[in-house]
Amino acid sequence: EIVAALDTELSGNAEHNGALPLDASPEHDDHAPTPDAFMAHAPTAAGPLAGCHVVITAGPTREAIDPVRYLSNHSSGKMGFALAEAARDQGARVTLISGPVTLATPAGIHRVNVISAMEMLEAVNATLADCDIFIGCAAVADYRLEEVAEHKLKKVPGSTALTLNLIENPDIIAAVTHREQPPFTVGFAAETRELARHAHDKLVRKRLDLIVANDVATPGLGFGADDNAAVLYHLAASGSEAAVTSHTLSPRAKRALAQALLDYMLPLYRAHQPTRSPAAP
Amino acid sequence: EIVAALDTELSGNAEHNGALPLDASPEHDDHAPTPDAFMAHAPTAAGPLAGCHVVITAGPTREAIDPVRYLSNHSSGKMGFALAEAARDQGARVTLISGPVTLATPAGIHRVNVISAMEMLEAVNATLADCDIFIGCAAVADYRLEEVAEHKLKKVPGSTALTLNLIENPDIIAAVTHREQPPFTVGFAAETRELARHAHDKLVRKRLDLIVANDVATPGLGFGADDNAAVLYHLAASGSEAAVTSHTLSPRAKRALAQALLDYMLPLYRAHQPTRSPAAP
Repeated sequence: EIVAALDTELSGNAEHNGALPLDASPEHDDHAPTPDAFMAHAPTAAGPLAGCHVVITAGPTREAIDPVRYLSNHSSGKMGFALAEAARDQGARVTLISGPVTLATPAGIHRVNVISAMEMLEAVNATLADCDIFIGCAAVADYRLEEVAEHKLKKVPGSTALTLNLIENPDIIAAVTHREQPPFTVGFAAETRELARHAHDKLVRKRLDLIVANDVATPGLGFGADDNAAVLYHLAASGSEAAVTSHTLSPRAKRALAQALLDYMLPLYRAHQPTRSPAAP
Repeated sequence: EIVAALDTELSGNAEHNGALPLDASPEHDDHAPTPDAFMAHAPTAAGPLAGCHVVITAGPTREAIDPVRYLSNHSSGKMGFALAEAARDQGARVTLISGPVTLATPAGIHRVNVISAMEMLEAVNATLADCDIFIGCAAVADYRLEEVAEHKLKKVPGSTALTLNLIENPDIIAAVTHREQPPFTVGFAAETRELARHAHDKLVRKRLDLIVANDVATPGLGFGADDNAAVLYHLAASGSEAAVTSHTLSPRAKRALAQALLDYMLPLYRAHQPTRSPAAP
């Protein structure tokens, strides 16, 4: 019900991105297949992720200030979309929950469009029941406006300052990992400094199975770019929070990075699976 | 010098819009012609605006919060780009100063890309020396952050709120009209209510020659849409601030609306010209 409601926001959302030339392209099909049509494709899938439902969030979220203004960030959605394609090619059934971006929906992927962090949380909750792997790649706004103005805010004559009061958004990925039987969960950390410290901290605090750390201060990589590099961190087999294993993926196209990331993830996912199987004690 | 510096920001800017499919298109040529190549085309122009230099601002501005977050608005740039094309077709030499949008540069138009309101002001100032008509179509952010964080802001553990302190941006269009010999100046008012009152107030306060008022609360029109409607306001021939003439342009494609707007503007521009000619006393 929520997903259907969000789907109707699609065209308006694409408009807001000013994606006119894309709208005119027959390839730019934002209309996700119906769940029935989508499920019908599942049995034919093969590959290491066959039978696996992967849920991926992508892009930025936008937090409205008033009907015309918003807070957002530079996430383009390219990394999340590349991961969706890579997971599909490894046989997974993929749900891609995307903030406002100007990217076309990859073939065979169920896309759900959202604008704000609150909408993204609802869409994530609606897909978690049968989710095996959750990859939180979206750059979710940490804060939203305490109050969204119904009409366009006017400058106050004589006043040269304005204060925006923000409140914390829900932590979507922590909401996923704190469920009773959480899926295998991959998080992202986009940082401009102290990458390792922030990533390690986030890995433990958010109970992630794997974290992908990007240095977004590097020109040509990260936000908006076509290439990316990453350092992957996860707890060592001992499970101690002090023993973290890291693995560096050198700069390459986001599509190739996505593939390498899933290849590295696969044995970790397989080792993790039994502990949260419904059949386990 | 400023213009050249801004031009180098182009590719980074297009990246931030996530406009990958557009980047790949040979039509998406963000690289404006050199001033020499551009001027060489001027003598061949014919039409009611031949010999006239029209400067148009378009799109939103983005005001950085930190390296990854920003404030912006839903302007797509479509109306400003449509005006640039319409002015070019009427024989004008056109400079288009654009905020971050995903639109291709129309042929024969000199485009300058900017991100923030401060950058847009600098670019406008750099083009005003020989500007005959200035059309301020950009949705310039009224406020920017008092301080831009050098590194990504981190959530403060235990704190659930954040305050953003904003200060007023310079009023670009008022800076244009308050020059000693201002060009004929057209402003825009995008409102969600009390259109006529806000437009009249802005016309007088900002010393505009013409204001184009849009009701952006109407679905399918205005921000991001392909169609638009407008009410034009200008002072009646008496020049009294109490006597305002209005003219309604019904909903139509933005390109057609741009044409109609310039057609309506032309006699007002011609009537206005002598009073600010360098030859006048």
